[in-house]
Amino acid sequence: MFVNPHIAGLPGSYLFQEIDSRVEAFLKTHKGRPVLRLGIGDVTRPLPKFIAEKFAQAALNMATQEGFKGYPPGRGYPFLIKKILKNDYLDRGIALDEDEIFISDGAKTDAAAIQELFSSSARIAFTDPVYPVYVDSNAMAGRLGEYDGKRWAGAQYLPTTEENGFIPPLPSKNVDVLYLCYPNNPTGTVLTKEQLKKYVDWAKENDALIVFDAAYKAFISDDNIPRSIYEVEGAKDVAIECCSFSKTAGFTGVRCAYTVIPKSVLGLGKDKQKHSLNKMWARRIGSKSNGVSYPVQVAAAAVYEDEGKRAIEENIAYYMENANILKAALNDCNIKYFGGEHAPYIWLKAPNQFDSWGFFDYLLNTCQIVGTPGVGFGPSGENYFRLTAFGERKNAEEAAKRIRDTFKEA
Amino acid sequence: MFVNPHIAGLPGSYLFQEIDSRVEAFLKTHKGRPVLRLGIGDVTRPLPKFIAEKFAQAALNMATQEGFKGYPPGRGYPFLIKKILKNDYLDRGIALDEDEIFISDGAKTDAAAIQELFSSSARIAFTDPVYPVYVDSNAMAGRLGEYDGKRWAGAQYLPTTEENGFIPPLPSKNVDVLYLCYPNNPTGTVLTKEQLKKYVDWAKENDALIVFDAAYKAFISDDNIPRSIYEVEGAKDVAIECCSFSKTAGFTGVRCAYTVIPKSVLGLGKDKQKHSLNKMWARRIGSKSNGVSYPVQVAAAAVYEDEGKRAIEENIAYYMENANILKAALNDCNIKYFGGEHAPYIWLKAPNQFDSWGFFDYLLNTCQIVGTPGVGFGPSGENYFRLTAFGERKNAEEAAKRIRDTFKEA
Repeated sequence: MFVNPHIAGLPGSYLFQEIDSRVEAFLKTHKGRPVLRLGIGDVTRPLPKFIAEKFAQAALNMATQEGFKGYPPGRGYPFLIKKILKNDYLDRGIALDEDEIFISDGAKTDAAAIQELFSSSARIAFTDPVYPVYVDSNAMAGRLGEYDGKRWAGAQYLPTTEENGFIPPLPSKNVDVLYLCYPNNPTGTVLTKEQLKKYVDWAKENDALIVFDAAYKAFISDDNIPRSIYEVEGAKDVAIECCSFSKTAGFTGVRCAYTVIPKSVLGLGKDKQKHSLNKMWARRIGSKSNGVSYPVQVAAAAVYEDEGKRAIEENIAYYMENANILKAALNDCNIKYFGGEHAPYIWLKAPNQFDSWGFFDYLLNTCQIVGTPGVGFGPSGENYFRLTAFGERKNAEEAAKRIRDTFKEA
Repeated sequence: MFVNPHIAGLPGSYLFQEIDSRVEAFLKTHKGRPVLRLGIGDVTRPLPKFIAEKFAQAALNMATQEGFKGYPPGRGYPFLIKKILKNDYLDRGIALDEDEIFISDGAKTDAAAIQELFSSSARIAFTDPVYPVYVDSNAMAGRLGEYDGKRWAGAQYLPTTEENGFIPPLPSKNVDVLYLCYPNNPTGTVLTKEQLKKYVDWAKENDALIVFDAAYKAFISDDNIPRSIYEVEGAKDVAIECCSFSKTAGFTGVRCAYTVIPKSVLGLGKDKQKHSLNKMWARRIGSKSNGVSYPVQVAAAAVYEDEGKRAIEENIAYYMENANILKAALNDCNIKYFGGEHAPYIWLKAPNQFDSWGFFDYLLNTCQIVGTPGVGFGPSGENYFRLTAFGERKNAEEAAKRIRDTFKEA
């Protein structure tokens, strides 16, 4: 049997493995203060008690004849879809229907699977640096051509750097699908409604699709920054939106997310007929999955109760205070950075002409702080470095102190 | 943007929709006794209390700093993998390693995704009748050619009927992948170790792969019938096995499953090099998912505790007693049937020359019993009809009574 050459031949994604092995090597000789990990983008605050209790109660109810649930609806339970629709869209002035929202076990799952709806020759564009899922899922499907060690020949990279104010250029006309993630991972930067509108207009003009990843929308603290691409006029005709409870509600270990596919988003068939991507996704889900755990969906619905909302806002404020503590230290040291205002990521420019990995080693050796080398997210990430605001307060404070001790000029 | 024509053009899977609409139409005029649903293969017994309590406790622990868990390992938590390995394999004399077992949210998800590892031109064979996921997932990937209303031109159908004793013929030499599901859905039939060995030998001789779906293995009550394809010599070189807690432990609403890919299963690359499907799957999972909910994995691990084992055995015995009650009625009425001994499905030959849908209508109208027309699972299912043993005891008893009242000759 022949295998899929695009998976067999996929270059290793060694970013976090390489980080781990460098940290491990360091720890073998290091005997001093503990290493502070500000690398991986995983939440650390416990699940709000209110949400955990609803989760647990649903699990217990499964042991009763009245409370038992078998296969969940493939597209998600209406009780959860209704809450998402009301809180995340209708109450914000965005009109959508219940059957335009699909529950899943993760935004990563959806962001990776959405490409199954595209023709095998669809041309793909993404920002550079980029969250790797958009790239890898299309590479595995054979859409990106050959990899030269830095770039896929068949993909369009949109550099997103200090030089263009972290506003990626528009893709060229021949691109079919543009992936955007805002608030952005890894740069932590955002786009205003006006800035985002340019991509929507480009997509409309070029019959292209935007896959919009809004996993970090809960970190936005300014009403002029869209939490949903559907705040932009016309987006309902050209955009799919992936959202997640992972970072919003600390669900990385619980696993729940949702994707919005408006019925007005259409693609062309071989027959030149227009096809609804909503219908195609429904068909795909029906054929390939059996939906999301019932108690997990109950937990996600609790996020929208008043007590759930208060609790998750507190957690987000906690992380953003970590970001403020880190940013204050960077300011004091004249280290340039971006993000960290509407996102849990701080994207700093490595000082002293360090490249990304050079700064990684230096920071590990001098400060015992682990971050993520920017170049790991794409070639335009070179010389940048990502710190996350997730983690305990005392770690953020200690990291800030170590940064000041090392980089602050006397 | 052009869409994937293999999803856009996929013929509707109207089986259960058509069932629902016929039942709905019937209910509009029917005023008598309640309709008994023996159609859909979903469990109905509550989750064992012991398992639900472990599940709930893990959910509650997520609200504590010590018990909180972020992203799960992509391939599953070692605490669960170790239990599966010991109970389902090592204790049964099958040697496997921990890194050959992958946890997922459902056997359907895995059975649908496994084809991503195959080359786009891989030739596929499956039994007829068949669980539709193997067919649809390959059709969506464009491997099966055109559909003529009954069959996909590019697939090989292996008729599995009374005539061949429900032992499918071997695929032809040019087949790359054979899907087998035993105990079988929908026929409820099984293969002995000796019978299964022929397919393993065929796969070895032809460098082919077997995807073995063992979702119903917990229903086997005879030690000569393999619960795992790895009981057959040589299978570790040619077979992938998908297993599930859905039917075993009543987890259809909890969502947990696992897939075994031995490291010795290899496929050919374009470069004519051999590639490990285990490594390819690990890479795929790492790039496309974030693993399974932590409390769900704790619940699955509880299935292997003594108290969990006892409880799930009781549930299985309960369903199989339903099967016995239904089979006794069919015997009394001289209705020929298969299965229902090591599987929760009874596959009956429609009496009185009925075709599958004709018998569906007749049974609904005379007995107010809903089953599944066999032809819905493939052309060789014509004239057959599936009843499930899931459901409440009183419903099985009532269905048996109605069958006797209608079909038993005086």
